Amino acid sequence: MNTKNVKAYGTVSSESALKQFKILRREVTENDIEIDILYCGVCHSDLHFAKNDWGMTVYPVVPGHEIVGRVSKIGAGVSKHSIGDIVAVGCLVDSCRSCNNCKNDLEQYCPEWVGTYGGHDKHLDTNTHGGYSEIIVVDESFVLSVPENLDLAGIAPVLCAGITTWSPLRHWNVNKDSKVAVVGLGGLGHMAIKLAHALGAHVTLFSRSTNKIEDAKALGAHEVIISTDESQMENAMGAFDLIIDTVPYEHDLNPYVGTLNINGTLVIVGYLGPIDPMLVTVPMIMGRKSVAGSLIGGITETQELLDFCGKHNITSDVEVIKMQEINAAYERMLKSDVKYRFVIDMKSL
Amino acid sequence: MNTKNVKAYGTVSSESALKQFKILRREVTENDIEIDILYCGVCHSDLHFAKNDWGMTVYPVVPGHEIVGRVSKIGAGVSKHSIGDIVAVGCLVDSCRSCNNCKNDLEQYCPEWVGTYGGHDKHLDTNTHGGYSEIIVVDESFVLSVPENLDLAGIAPVLCAGITTWSPLRHWNVNKDSKVAVVGLGGLGHMAIKLAHALGAHVTLFSRSTNKIEDAKALGAHEVIISTDESQMENAMGAFDLIIDTVPYEHDLNPYVGTLNINGTLVIVGYLGPIDPMLVTVPMIMGRKSVAGSLIGGITETQELLDFCGKHNITSDVEVIKMQEINAAYERMLKSDVKYRFVIDMKSL
Repeated sequence: MNTKNVKAYGTVSSESALKQFKILRREVTENDIEIDILYCGVCHSDLHFAKNDWGMTVYPVVPGHEIVGRVSKIGAGVSKHSIGDIVAVGCLVDSCRSCNNCKNDLEQYCPEWVGTYGGHDKHLDTNTHGGYSEIIVVDESFVLSVPENLDLAGIAPVLCAGITTWSPLRHWNVNKDSKVAVVGLGGLGHMAIKLAHALGAHVTLFSRSTNKIEDAKALGAHEVIISTDESQMENAMGAFDLIIDTVPYEHDLNPYVGTLNINGTLVIVGYLGPIDPMLVTVPMIMGRKSVAGSLIGGITETQELLDFCGKHNITSDVEVIKMQEINAAYERMLKSDVKYRFVIDMKSL
Repeated sequence: MNTKNVKAYGTVSSESALKQFKILRREVTENDIEIDILYCGVCHSDLHFAKNDWGMTVYPVVPGHEIVGRVSKIGAGVSKHSIGDIVAVGCLVDSCRSCNNCKNDLEQYCPEWVGTYGGHDKHLDTNTHGGYSEIIVVDESFVLSVPENLDLAGIAPVLCAGITTWSPLRHWNVNKDSKVAVVGLGGLGHMAIKLAHALGAHVTLFSRSTNKIEDAKALGAHEVIISTDESQMENAMGAFDLIIDTVPYEHDLNPYVGTLNINGTLVIVGYLGPIDPMLVTVPMIMGRKSVAGSLIGGITETQELLDFCGKHNITSDVEVIKMQEINAAYERMLKSDVKYRFVIDMKSL
């Protein structure tokens, strides 16, 4: 297999800061597309992976799965994209393509899906490397088209933060008659508000403090409920058809379950771990309520989202940084000090 | 309001055994039906209520919400049933009839639904009294028709144990392509197996011990998985579209969540309390799985179930007892020593 060395930014251990080094990329094969990376969003998962918070990191790691770039080379069999096209790559670069999930456009639930970083690169027999790099080479089936009208930095977070909230909005059939609530106003939460609003739903943000009210309304929320205010929570009992819970740390879900309507669902998209405090079953039984999880989205669904964003002129609110600022950005991200997503301008690498 | 004294069996405190006493029933008003009670099923809730396990019992309490009887009187405005008809009453005898849930045939989720016992009787301004009695007077809207071909003792438990499992089977669209699992083989569990089987689903029982295999298969289960056998549980990973969990006490749901397929749902119908051990979100997120609750069923849905039972000749497997045996029956029920439901022959009262 022909390969080349390309510049990348990553880390070699959980204690090290991110720094520049070289990684191998394959030359395009039959169905591959080589992409000059223009922008790469910074996801919390990047940080978790770099720090080995989930105990599964193989070093060196090059994070980044919110990738927007320009096609620079294509394999002989590529038909979906041409040189010069603006394209995107999200969290997946491959899957088995034969299981029921793959056949049903649910590649994100394929047991053999290959993550854009930290997965297994079958071509090079190494771990895959993500978008904090000059170029990436991806099978055309996992390369998405970007609508021409959208800001390229702003569209990058749609590839993870966007699709993670879009997929449950679609799966649970959110439309103009829906009442949707969002817990948490970060990268995922701000996209959830924009997308639910654009689908015509009535959108509410749950927030612990009053200082997010103005921002939430500017993003499209119709109201904000202060979750620490018991009377506001009481008034919201039974209100929502769908709650998208984006909070990435342990928190009590029971008060939110109380605000679900009959047949309502609370979908966890941000928190990995045990549900502590424990869920109480009585309100679930007394209202046929569900607590569910949801993981990113499939390739077809992600393209649908990009097209929807093009039609509704939706992008993420981003702060563009240079590659060399990534370690400081991680520090700020830990303090939720970003509105609402860092995106790296890859020219700086 | 004209009333009369009728014989009933109940208890006056949480420490007392059940015994015979008299209660008031109203004479039929415009839309009422008076029913001579022939059989009344014995539900775990009866026991919980008699013992005040849920801290909400108002004494005296007369349990019983699986009622089958013959119409003995009707009000002038009654059109749905005639004197002599075999009819049934389940867990509900009234609701507000104007909320969205009532309008959508979901009376069980009406905030003002009136339980067959332990509810508030607006006519007599007392608490309602259930089926451990000679007669009951119920608004015709809450009186169901019983298909003629069915055993009258055997149909009684369908009114609670049956509908509690039927409602989630229908809500989650179980059909001949579904793989359904049932946790626990008691009153609810044995009905869940019969009904899921009759809907054409592939049905599996989860059981802790091997001595229920034969019984479960006789009821219609295609297979039994011993939940304490790790290799059997491992083999079942990702297998089920719907799991109906009928277990009434604290137990670990996480192993069962593991056996759900993508988009699968585990429905809790038997356990009121905190989910301990805590649910872990990762498997829910990685497979878009849900944990939900469900409560009995609406009146239309209960009639649908009775008609389905008539068509498929389904009844509960019961042990018929005399009224005077109820205290001993409660003792045996606590030890799960019944296949699968006690039903009181009300002639004995």
